[in-house]
Amino acid sequence: MRKGLVIVNTGNGKGKTTAALGVLLRAWGNGMRVVMLQFIKHTTARWGEIKAAEKMGIEMIPLGSGFTWKSKDLEKDKALARQGWEICKEKIQSGQYDLVILDELTYTLKYGWLPLDEVLQVLKNRPEGLHIIITGRDAPQELIDFADLVTEMRKVKHPYDQGIRAQLGIEY
Amino acid sequence: MRKGLVIVNTGNGKGKTTAALGVLLRAWGNGMRVVMLQFIKHTTARWGEIKAAEKMGIEMIPLGSGFTWKSKDLEKDKALARQGWEICKEKIQSGQYDLVILDELTYTLKYGWLPLDEVLQVLKNRPEGLHIIITGRDAPQELIDFADLVTEMRKVKHPYDQGIRAQLGIEY
Repeated sequence: MRKGLVIVNTGNGKGKTTAALGVLLRAWGNGMRVVMLQFIKHTTARWGEIKAAEKMGIEMIPLGSGFTWKSKDLEKDKALARQGWEICKEKIQSGQYDLVILDELTYTLKYGWLPLDEVLQVLKNRPEGLHIIITGRDAPQELIDFADLVTEMRKVKHPYDQGIRAQLGIEY
Repeated sequence: MRKGLVIVNTGNGKGKTTAALGVLLRAWGNGMRVVMLQFIKHTTARWGEIKAAEKMGIEMIPLGSGFTWKSKDLEKDKALARQGWEICKEKIQSGQYDLVILDELTYTLKYGWLPLDEVLQVLKNRPEGLHIIITGRDAPQELIDFADLVTEMRKVKHPYDQGIRAQLGIEY
């Protein structure tokens, strides 16, 4: 029984994006068609996962487009989020994928850059069997209510607290 | 500043193993030397991540060896865990890796198959700069105390609760 799941990884801990990447790897291993769209991150950044995706031939699309997120210019942020969301919608509705990851989408909802109602409608009307993973802190309750699988990544202990900086290959 | 981190993904929710896989992907993307050792899982299983690892040229070693875990024969389980742990130790101490993942190791501790003290000693004496990720439910407090980064994956909502079965490419 194939059922497309809407999966949400939220919470203040590590592992929201990496758990999505792990499912991406697993799905790709099973020959599924996958794409990851990344809000917030800049196109110029050379994140480990982007380098990996290139080697694997996986589509990974940063939606930062060289703009600065959280520019304090709400209209600019909204326009950028809207532009990114149009690409997400196109990918979701294309029927070309088995798994679409919307990385850090929750921030666009939290800051009011995208209307939640529209996002939920697009999720609801997705092609049958399509899995969608959404990551980011502070997932809105309506999204949690709508989703099939929701996990909270809760911080128990973080090296920042002990003054240890982010480590290459682990956190980026 | 390179510091090898000991990372623990625990809790009753999804994402413990997949978050480790995501870090594996990221580290591999950054050209790091990685290996994943999987307790509990059988060598005969064709998990998505195993197929992916083959395609990527990543070492992923199931330690089930065809035995049945949780056989209710404690001595057999202990022997199997011990045999798997010897391979883990060899990998950790080899100096050949930047990241070693010990997937579902916590169960070997929970069921008393491996002595916690010995595991902690091996972690403590690992080569400088080596990152180790340990996954599984019910991580012992001493391991949490020792680790640098600990995340609890907490179940908020799971499709099993709604009668939806595990989905290929997502959960396996």
